[in-house]
Amino acid sequence: MSTTYLSTKPYKGARDFFPEDMRIRNYIFSVWRSICERYGFEEYDFPIVENLEVFASKSGEEIVSTQLFSFADKGERNVALRPELTPSTVRMIADRYNELPKPIKWFMIGNNWRFEKPQKGRGREFYQLEGNIFGVEGVEADFEIFSLIVAIMKEFGANETMYRLYYSDRRLISLLLDEVLKLTQEQQLSARRIMDKRKKVTAEEFVEMLAAVGITGKAADTIEAFMNSTFSELPTLLPEKLLAENQGYQDVLQLEQLLIDFDLMKYCQFDPGIIRGFDYSDGLVYEVFDTNPENKRSMFGGERFDRLINVFGKFDMAATGFAMGDITLLEFLKGWNLLPELPTTTRVLVTRFPDDNPAIFTYAVKIAQQLRENGISVSQYPTKDKLEKQLKYAEKLGIPFVVIAGEGELEYNTVKLKELKKRAEQTVALSELANYFSKGKL
Amino acid sequence: MSTTYLSTKPYKGARDFFPEDMRIRNYIFSVWRSICERYGFEEYDFPIVENLEVFASKSGEEIVSTQLFSFADKGERNVALRPELTPSTVRMIADRYNELPKPIKWFMIGNNWRFEKPQKGRGREFYQLEGNIFGVEGVEADFEIFSLIVAIMKEFGANETMYRLYYSDRRLISLLLDEVLKLTQEQQLSARRIMDKRKKVTAEEFVEMLAAVGITGKAADTIEAFMNSTFSELPTLLPEKLLAENQGYQDVLQLEQLLIDFDLMKYCQFDPGIIRGFDYSDGLVYEVFDTNPENKRSMFGGERFDRLINVFGKFDMAATGFAMGDITLLEFLKGWNLLPELPTTTRVLVTRFPDDNPAIFTYAVKIAQQLRENGISVSQYPTKDKLEKQLKYAEKLGIPFVVIAGEGELEYNTVKLKELKKRAEQTVALSELANYFSKGKL
Repeated sequence: MSTTYLSTKPYKGARDFFPEDMRIRNYIFSVWRSICERYGFEEYDFPIVENLEVFASKSGEEIVSTQLFSFADKGERNVALRPELTPSTVRMIADRYNELPKPIKWFMIGNNWRFEKPQKGRGREFYQLEGNIFGVEGVEADFEIFSLIVAIMKEFGANETMYRLYYSDRRLISLLLDEVLKLTQEQQLSARRIMDKRKKVTAEEFVEMLAAVGITGKAADTIEAFMNSTFSELPTLLPEKLLAENQGYQDVLQLEQLLIDFDLMKYCQFDPGIIRGFDYSDGLVYEVFDTNPENKRSMFGGERFDRLINVFGKFDMAATGFAMGDITLLEFLKGWNLLPELPTTTRVLVTRFPDDNPAIFTYAVKIAQQLRENGISVSQYPTKDKLEKQLKYAEKLGIPFVVIAGEGELEYNTVKLKELKKRAEQTVALSELANYFSKGKL
Repeated sequence: MSTTYLSTKPYKGARDFFPEDMRIRNYIFSVWRSICERYGFEEYDFPIVENLEVFASKSGEEIVSTQLFSFADKGERNVALRPELTPSTVRMIADRYNELPKPIKWFMIGNNWRFEKPQKGRGREFYQLEGNIFGVEGVEADFEIFSLIVAIMKEFGANETMYRLYYSDRRLISLLLDEVLKLTQEQQLSARRIMDKRKKVTAEEFVEMLAAVGITGKAADTIEAFMNSTFSELPTLLPEKLLAENQGYQDVLQLEQLLIDFDLMKYCQFDPGIIRGFDYSDGLVYEVFDTNPENKRSMFGGERFDRLINVFGKFDMAATGFAMGDITLLEFLKGWNLLPELPTTTRVLVTRFPDDNPAIFTYAVKIAQQLRENGISVSQYPTKDKLEKQLKYAEKLGIPFVVIAGEGELEYNTVKLKELKKRAEQTVALSELANYFSKGKL
């Protein structure tokens, strides 16, 4: 017989969640869920396996060609694990385009898969919160999304010094590259890709990258100036008449007024360097950066994607929304020391008295049942180990209270109740025990 | 330009969850989670993609050869989507075999994938609650699992007339087939498979199936008699000395005493026809059946799997637990009319008064913010549609309250509050509005 054992590790780049990890995940998910619901968003979901074509059409090229977990099912249908949540969300909206009351405010929490080289803060799987508003053309929807993002960050304990929400509009970039600089379509595409990398390179390298795709001289200078421009400086850089006619410019102007009116401007800032890689972005784009000097980077983002739905039919459905990943968020929370202590949900361990009298075990089960019937989370110790071992077990798991009942307690219908941290012990009538927990005395 | 549109449907046999479906799923998951926590179980999770070998070794043959969603990743590693939750659970236990405090009481809720022909009550994906106790050899652990199952069913509103938990022990079947009838290993395997199908065929068909694998005469008669036996009749059928030495018999005897002591026997019944298909079952086996005459079938089950862990190393870790699927459970709940009404979590729609005065929209946003700061779930209507349309929107989504504020309300810092079902309307000071909801006046 072979003694080759299987590996106990999960698939490379993916995570096991032991109970202490799961408590962190549940904490993050519960904040996401509760704040989205508070903003009137409804939860939805869809399968992690999707017909390949849904991603092949619109997710960024890099994702589809090199990062997709794709395969043929046993019926030779080409499928893929979702690498992101937006395309299938839009598929669902298209499926009930006529019936769904608009505006549609939806959120979901789901796992995505990308074949990447695992590294710090990036795995092959990650969870995302996806929140979108469909059916609203005006910036009121984007403002609502910004408000939601700030509310979520606030619930995690983050203030305006810890992160910044940068925004721009793709239509401003089209104005620059197409209407003003009159670059070819190919040059425009290259310019966008290079602009997306601006933050990671020096000004010199940036100009060299532009030169490599044939953008030089005044055009390159204008792009570099644009990248360093504030929103109020734009009229000095771009023709005012074109700006006035540009919906992107008008939308940012109106959005900023709402942000000022509701004191959200302190979290937000216009940044022409925000491009977003996804091929389906077509209006406002935004990205949230950690301001922690040791972890300065993009955490998550969002955008307008009004036309993505048209791969599913001839529809008219404005859309804006964001997706926030759990791995980057967790690094942010750890970096700013915002993660709370998350103890086990079990409140009480009912021990098993190491005695052969079956009535004593029966009494222990009765105690546990009574506490559970009162909504208290109780673990019952099943075997006749030494009490010392059972107490250590509770300590290791972080269970705060221990109940002990032997011959004497059984006789008088009482229990010994120990609070482990305080090393305090008292005798309590069984009939009073549940009250001790539900009335918050302990 | 092509006008071929992509399908808006999900992958065949898998489910989209629109908000009304998601509320049902969230209800089921929240009952699962809260009762497992109340019984002192801790939540964990692992990736949906797993190294293929984890399933190839121990999941039943049918699952691996025909039902697995398996493929090679872009690095040529053979992987699979999990078809069940137990093997990877055991992998995690093995990974921290020494560190984890025992007993280990764990639960998880996860999505599984099997390539099956989609039919009523069976899709290619389904969710399961998996709950296990590791490290306890005695039936106290199985009793705890039975108690947990009954508590979950009770929380869903199910009583003893609606379902039945049948149990048996594989060691009793070994006693019959191996020690008493002395069948060959091959015949024993066939006999188990045929016994597993006993409930679906007539007695005549059953005997024919046994004959087809060479089991005839007294052996076939004894198997058929065994299948129809109660637990107390076993000593008339099998040698008492062998029974007394059989750990399976002793365990069932002890388990029944606990079930009687705690009034759980009314939900439970010994049934020698419970076999369980998984290759890793090696002791007590149990299955829960819906008693609904229109839906009489196995809903879910569990078993002892003390030796499964040994594919990961030389370990010693007793294990027992169950897995409950969401699709069959939902059919059960619908069949017995146990599913509660599950309205949207949004309590209030703050309308946008169709007026061009920007101060009126500013006032509406302020109202929504104030309610949200008080923990009330509020949807804000973003566009200047007619009020009638906005009220219909609230009605369609099932949002119970609507707030309206125009010029007059703005001037006096009040709002009009409408309760849609009662068609009642009142004017409330903005400063009092949140109290109306939090104090439960409405």
